[in-house]
Amino acid sequence: MSVYELWYWPGIPGRGEFVRLALEAGRIPYRDVVMAAPDADSGMSAMLDDMEREDPAPPFAPPYLVADGMRIAQVANILAFLGDRHGLAPADPAGRYWAAQLQLTIADMVAEAHDVHHPVSVALRYEDQMPEAARRAEAFRAERMPKFLDYFERVLAVRGDWLGGATWSYADLSLFQLAEGLAFAFPQRFAAVIADRPHVAALRARVAALPELQAYLASPRRQAFSDGIFRHYPELDGVD
Amino acid sequence: MSVYELWYWPGIPGRGEFVRLALEAGRIPYRDVVMAAPDADSGMSAMLDDMEREDPAPPFAPPYLVADGMRIAQVANILAFLGDRHGLAPADPAGRYWAAQLQLTIADMVAEAHDVHHPVSVALRYEDQMPEAARRAEAFRAERMPKFLDYFERVLAVRGDWLGGATWSYADLSLFQLAEGLAFAFPQRFAAVIADRPHVAALRARVAALPELQAYLASPRRQAFSDGIFRHYPELDGVD
Repeated sequence: MSVYELWYWPGIPGRGEFVRLALEAGRIPYRDVVMAAPDADSGMSAMLDDMEREDPAPPFAPPYLVADGMRIAQVANILAFLGDRHGLAPADPAGRYWAAQLQLTIADMVAEAHDVHHPVSVALRYEDQMPEAARRAEAFRAERMPKFLDYFERVLAVRGDWLGGATWSYADLSLFQLAEGLAFAFPQRFAAVIADRPHVAALRARVAALPELQAYLASPRRQAFSDGIFRHYPELDGVD
Repeated sequence: MSVYELWYWPGIPGRGEFVRLALEAGRIPYRDVVMAAPDADSGMSAMLDDMEREDPAPPFAPPYLVADGMRIAQVANILAFLGDRHGLAPADPAGRYWAAQLQLTIADMVAEAHDVHHPVSVALRYEDQMPEAARRAEAFRAERMPKFLDYFERVLAVRGDWLGGATWSYADLSLFQLAEGLAFAFPQRFAAVIADRPHVAALRARVAALPELQAYLASPRRQAFSDGIFRHYPELDGVD
């Protein structure tokens, strides 16, 4: 088995980070192809070429994982593969579909968190869609953030320490990353919402303390949030 | 094995239709629980109660399928289950992850098509977010619709008749439904875009002609588009 290759945009944790956390916590060797390039431009250029080459199963967008001769794209799909192959999710069918279901709900919230600062078009800058972003941010803070986090709180209140089994699964790692992103992007609102969701707060702390992740989280490979999916614009945050 | 139960909002095809098409084309017996209720209100009320009951694996949102003692939510996850269990996708790992990847990309476009008319908040009516919708519609028509359909065109140009194998998979059914929805919501723009994507147009016609689907498509159970995910507001359509 050759070492897996992860392909993702350089310079942001973005959606690639959900995959990185699973690879790191699972102690699965991988090559972070674009990050390993001599510079960001050449890495990105190599990725764009790689995406365009003739292939019966091309990715629509990064991240994608090259593994066992396959090119696997879409975060939830990559994680399902890693879950199946490396035991990063329950192995029984019910547990397996449950982890996938959780991951897709996390992915939905990630997409909504992104669209707060890009409610009109990904081809425009935030500065060109600020009035729309202000309205969407208000709805995200007031309705969507509590609704999604209430759901995870409800699950954890029944299940205990982990979302999907007796130990962590890729979904727990992803919920941690989602919480980190929300705390970065909406520090005031997230602090208010998480104060009433102790199980989600505890899950976040539990993942942050996983022995398997300490070396990675302390390394320069763990990238800070900046201008990717989760962005901090003070005018989009608020206590309510 | 008990008959599967499908739970979804009454009155719209919505995301439930991607599941219905797979169940119908796969000739899998199921009970459409809410549609079978005496009236829409009591059906919806029963579903809301069902979603709130104590369960270690609750759905975040409909549709969900009750199958073999599991409650499986998220369209791509339900379809992966049906694919695994009923051969509605290639059985080898590469084909299986590929079908899931396609489905997730279809789901991304479905979500974007929805957000055209609800770019600010799902809790507001379209009439309360029309200026934002006009801008998002322009970007969706000009950038996103060609980009997504180019991707499926590229895949079909290499693969031939079907997206994922020697015969149809659930992803083909879903791409058909997506094309139907786009043709309903954006008739002018979709006609212009599809004219240059002959493989997607042919796939749509091929699924529409599947013998397995004829009885269903001609039945009253096949609901018309109205005010669900795909909505036709003439002011959001245009030739470019």
